[in-house]
Amino acid sequence: MKPFMDEDFLLQSETAKKLYHDYAEKMPIIDYHCHINPQEIYEDKQFASITEAWLGGDHYKWRVVRANGYDEKYVTGAGSDWEKFEAWANTLPKCIGNPLYHWTHLELKRYFGCGKPLNGGDAREIFDLCNQKLREKEMSVRGIIKQSNVKLICTTDSPADTLEWHKKLAADKTLEVKVLPAFRPDKTVNIEKPGFVEYVAEMEKACGMKIATLGDMKKALALRLDYFGENGCRVSDHGLDYCVCSPADEKELDRILAKALAGETVTQEEADQYKTGLLLFLGEEYAKRGWVMQIHFGCLRNNNSAMFRKLGPDTGYDAMGNSEGAARLAGFLNCLEERGALPKTILYSLNDADNSIIASVMGCFQKDVAGKMQLGSAWWFNDSKTGMVKQLTDLANGGVLGNFIGMLTDSRSFLSYTRHEYFRRILCNLIGQWVEDGEYPCEMEFLGKMVQDISYNNTVRYFGFEL
Amino acid sequence: MKPFMDEDFLLQSETAKKLYHDYAEKMPIIDYHCHINPQEIYEDKQFASITEAWLGGDHYKWRVVRANGYDEKYVTGAGSDWEKFEAWANTLPKCIGNPLYHWTHLELKRYFGCGKPLNGGDAREIFDLCNQKLREKEMSVRGIIKQSNVKLICTTDSPADTLEWHKKLAADKTLEVKVLPAFRPDKTVNIEKPGFVEYVAEMEKACGMKIATLGDMKKALALRLDYFGENGCRVSDHGLDYCVCSPADEKELDRILAKALAGETVTQEEADQYKTGLLLFLGEEYAKRGWVMQIHFGCLRNNNSAMFRKLGPDTGYDAMGNSEGAARLAGFLNCLEERGALPKTILYSLNDADNSIIASVMGCFQKDVAGKMQLGSAWWFNDSKTGMVKQLTDLANGGVLGNFIGMLTDSRSFLSYTRHEYFRRILCNLIGQWVEDGEYPCEMEFLGKMVQDISYNNTVRYFGFEL
Amino acid sequence: MKPFMDEDFLLQSETAKKLYHDYAEKMPIIDYHCHINPQEIYEDKQFASITEAWLGGDHYKWRVVRANGYDEKYVTGAGSDWEKFEAWANTLPKCIGNPLYHWTHLELKRYFGCGKPLNGGDAREIFDLCNQKLREKEMSVRGIIKQSNVKLICTTDSPADTLEWHKKLAADKTLEVKVLPAFRPDKTVNIEKPGFVEYVAEMEKACGMKIATLGDMKKALALRLDYFGENGCRVSDHGLDYCVCSPADEKELDRILAKALAGETVTQEEADQYKTGLLLFLGEEYAKRGWVMQIHFGCLRNNNSAMFRKLGPDTGYDAMGNSEGAARLAGFLNCLEERGALPKTILYSLNDADNSIIASVMGCFQKDVAGKMQLGSAWWFNDSKTGMVKQLTDLANGGVLGNFIGMLTDSRSFLSYTRHEYFRRILCNLIGQWVEDGEYPCEMEFLGKMVQDISYNNTVRYFGFEL
Repeated sequence: MKPFMDEDFLLQSETAKKLYHDYAEKMPIIDYHCHINPQEIYEDKQFASITEAWLGGDHYKWRVVRANGYDEKYVTGAGSDWEKFEAWANTLPKCIGNPLYHWTHLELKRYFGCGKPLNGGDAREIFDLCNQKLREKEMSVRGIIKQSNVKLICTTDSPADTLEWHKKLAADKTLEVKVLPAFRPDKTVNIEKPGFVEYVAEMEKACGMKIATLGDMKKALALRLDYFGENGCRVSDHGLDYCVCSPADEKELDRILAKALAGETVTQEEADQYKTGLLLFLGEEYAKRGWVMQIHFGCLRNNNSAMFRKLGPDTGYDAMGNSEGAARLAGFLNCLEERGALPKTILYSLNDADNSIIASVMGCFQKDVAGKMQLGSAWWFNDSKTGMVKQLTDLANGGVLGNFIGMLTDSRSFLSYTRHEYFRRILCNLIGQWVEDGEYPCEMEFLGKMVQDISYNNTVRYFGFEL
Repeated sequence: MKPFMDEDFLLQSETAKKLYHDYAEKMPIIDYHCHINPQEIYEDKQFASITEAWLGGDHYKWRVVRANGYDEKYVTGAGSDWEKFEAWANTLPKCIGNPLYHWTHLELKRYFGCGKPLNGGDAREIFDLCNQKLREKEMSVRGIIKQSNVKLICTTDSPADTLEWHKKLAADKTLEVKVLPAFRPDKTVNIEKPGFVEYVAEMEKACGMKIATLGDMKKALALRLDYFGENGCRVSDHGLDYCVCSPADEKELDRILAKALAGETVTQEEADQYKTGLLLFLGEEYAKRGWVMQIHFGCLRNNNSAMFRKLGPDTGYDAMGNSEGAARLAGFLNCLEERGALPKTILYSLNDADNSIIASVMGCFQKDVAGKMQLGSAWWFNDSKTGMVKQLTDLANGGVLGNFIGMLTDSRSFLSYTRHEYFRRILCNLIGQWVEDGEYPCEMEFLGKMVQDISYNNTVRYFGFEL
Repeated sequence: MKPFMDEDFLLQSETAKKLYHDYAEKMPIIDYHCHINPQEIYEDKQFASITEAWLGGDHYKWRVVRANGYDEKYVTGAGSDWEKFEAWANTLPKCIGNPLYHWTHLELKRYFGCGKPLNGGDAREIFDLCNQKLREKEMSVRGIIKQSNVKLICTTDSPADTLEWHKKLAADKTLEVKVLPAFRPDKTVNIEKPGFVEYVAEMEKACGMKIATLGDMKKALALRLDYFGENGCRVSDHGLDYCVCSPADEKELDRILAKALAGETVTQEEADQYKTGLLLFLGEEYAKRGWVMQIHFGCLRNNNSAMFRKLGPDTGYDAMGNSEGAARLAGFLNCLEERGALPKTILYSLNDADNSIIASVMGCFQKDVAGKMQLGSAWWFNDSKTGMVKQLTDLANGGVLGNFIGMLTDSRSFLSYTRHEYFRRILCNLIGQWVEDGEYPCEMEFLGKMVQDISYNNTVRYFGFEL
């Protein structure tokens, strides 16, 4: 029996251990997609408690505590820090097989030096230990980032954002990590969703211009793209419920935009047409700038209306959609390719039945750049051991694993950099197993480099980050 | 090499063996969903032959015998008991990797004390041995149930059913197992299917009232819900081809119902609207009563018209549908939640690509009760070793495995309680492997309890059975 | 650690080794579905270089070389043989986990006696070695076929084909392999695609008759079916983007055909109706003749318009479609069954999420012949180790693995017969593991025969080949 989560956690062969410890482990981290707050980095926030750090915004954890029957009081409600922590500690042991179990204990080990399993019995002791540790200077946000060996972080930012904190971070000579914005224009794309008109007004203000036609919208977005670019941005992100590919002429798109701006409801077809038009424009702009385009799809959001009214979005009420849209995805990429304007693109689906579809579709658009089209790392609900193994296997089966740009946290928490460790262990174990089974020659130098490339080097090269 | 299906069958580690033999094996069985005939329990039926017991109604076996090229004569036709058994015995050895292979040999071992593999060569000997054994008193229906350590059985019953045999069973002081009805109102829901009008007439008779409007239908169903409740019912079941979520106002539903009752064909949209309306009503009623709602979907039924005309439904001509309907499932549950009337719910799809979708959707509606929303046990075509491992893994990845209510047979046969053993071995092996691999601490007492909970205790608590 | 791809490659247990080496390894090959050119067999082509043999038409390899960033010059363009080979050799080592890695090294071993891993460093040496070897007489097309122990090959041929080379091959007494045509009438089925009208003209010429109505088309196809039958054909193949089941009356189909022949665009519904009508007719004809019908679906073709204009079809720009169409597949098979005219049928989907759907649907139509309905071997993008294990497992779970007709190459290359070896090793390893784990009794004689049946005997019986 292997000891519980020791230094060889998830490494089941000698080759795996060697690949991880001799090559992957020491590589720095680039977290090119996450949802942390740049202000908290600038101000070097110190967490008031482990409850704030762990349970303040983590809807993964909220979901399982709710599923364990706890009242909302102990999740996002008025419960005390200790009560919430206790609810979580009572829930976790039943989450056997859930990635939360591993994430939590990796974080306990790496950041708090605690090797005990978290459960109802030891909860108070661990609560106190963590809270005490969080008071130390090295456990500030910058301290955590530094000890995690993170070299670069891309946050997620709306086009109208002033990037005020990014500017301050860029000017801060004491900062040991690079923090760049990422361009996420969903609020200008989601024409059918509440808040669209209001966001267009924000864009008008940010750009100092009126937005009435698609041409205006494009001009405004181009201004913000330039602004983001000046502030170091190299990557965009699009969250789509599903892939769209409904090209329409610009006059029609003007009509649809005018309709939405007048407060009228657009049909689903109109929304798809508008989105397609705007995404094609943005794709071209990214290509022109050498940026990377990220597309996330396969998502059903805000499924519980009562809780949405109470807590808003991103509170644990999203789900996986059906696998569909292969033809639209292929069609959309083809539209960009026809314009000679397909940027480097990372595709993610929340439904991992799409992995092999994406791998096969993107294989039709590979060109010029090694790994130009990428199947994104196992995302969200798939970010588990089995989900990562599946993503790596699906990618290996259908493409060139050696060009993969690897892991990102997609996280709202500063304590989740250990997910890169989790990923690297799984990667090394998979490759190690192939070698042990005689399916790949034992060329350790080459394999060690491959593992380091997937952990770090490919990312630097792909995004063109300057480090 | 492990011996063929010995006491450590499917248990590949010491931890797995300990979990199974020290904890899971001895737990009683609650079979909360099956299709056995309560009359046969009351009358304590004795089977005429192993052919009747095994091949009398088991469409799983029929399918593979047909697939092996045998004429229908040897399946459901005029073939003798021996001829049918021989066809089955000649087919089984080719079914390597099929769960039927394991189910059959578990049944041979547990009920007939026979450790020989069934094949053409030994078929006659095993046929005679089983037939002789079936003459013994302990191999009556009640005898089989008793030696299987079954404490409670829920049959499947239509709303208009008199529950005559359940009443007799309840009054029988010699009965050592609890037998409860389950409420399956499909015939009142499936407005577009042949037999709807006739079944409404049956409902009218059972309720002593006219059914002309949706209000009438609701009233009638409520009467039957009360009646089922008086007879111990705690659970309903819905078999849907696919999820529906097409709310419409009651006036419209009255019109659709009237149309169907007049013998006219309803459109698919009308059928979906009627079904949605009735299901929302029933969900509310279940919630009010504290019952559990089961929803089965993802099914294509009666695909072979010629054989349907000859043999009717449930004769081996159903198939898996496509994975689709995540949005409708989420929408339907949200409608109930909006009314504050979402009952405890178990969701099953015949397409196991839906497992992770269901796990993520149901996570949006967990509340108040530990494991309120359940991903049902691997169903029908998925009830294989790999299917169960997948269901357990998908559930573990996306939720709280420790709250799972575990196995049911869904069977028409009294010899299939060994499927609970099959499930428990697979469960213990999976958890045991995680422990052996250092992915979960070796806390045997806690894990043993978890395994016992999933095998039995969670079910008692979840349904509120009194035992 | 197992040595890299030695004689026990992929065989992880003693039982697996025994099954492969004592039973499967020596069985001859029937390649009942491939895309090689019969002329090249007749003329006993000798390859000019390893680049021609390996990279001349293999879009699998092209895709990964492109994905590795190489310009089209080094793929299908003006690059020299060495430059193209070098690009491929530099790409392959990064394709860890991709079946190309194993296919390539199996071919290097079996045909060129080279056990070295192909990579940038050893590329020139291996290039020279292969080129030298290819000059030997035993490396002619017939030589390769002979040393591969291939007994029978079915090519893929259009209905209007003269079968000139098949006639010559049949008359050639020196030929040691049987080469038969297969009937692939896609160009008469795909009424909505460019080239339809032109192909109808070819059919008119081949049949010496005018084609204006569906009746004419059926008559013409029947003539060609007879002609193919006279030339030994026993199998057809249909490549569908998706399953169709839209029956319409013949008058309507006449109208649709006339519309298409007049050069007008048909709607998707019209195309589906025409296809359904023609496929039902062809299914009946196959049934009448005792032929096998192959249906391939789940495909998105020619996704990259720019490259399609440049290189045409089958150049590496196809992808997997979504899993959908279970109801249409079941409906289509039922239509044929209703006419008493369902032929032996092999079903393949490019989306392996369809495996278990197909297994369950086809189980509804099994009748009379052992394994009449077949889930085809893991196809195209699924033809990987994990894809084959999944196909075998899905088939075993849902049907009778012992009746499986096994592997085909689907290849355009004469060097790919080693994929049969790849398949057999995977099959033996899977069955061997079940035996080692005590899930199936260790009856080596029976299992050895089963493995030989799946490798060869079932195919002979199923197609009725005379050898």
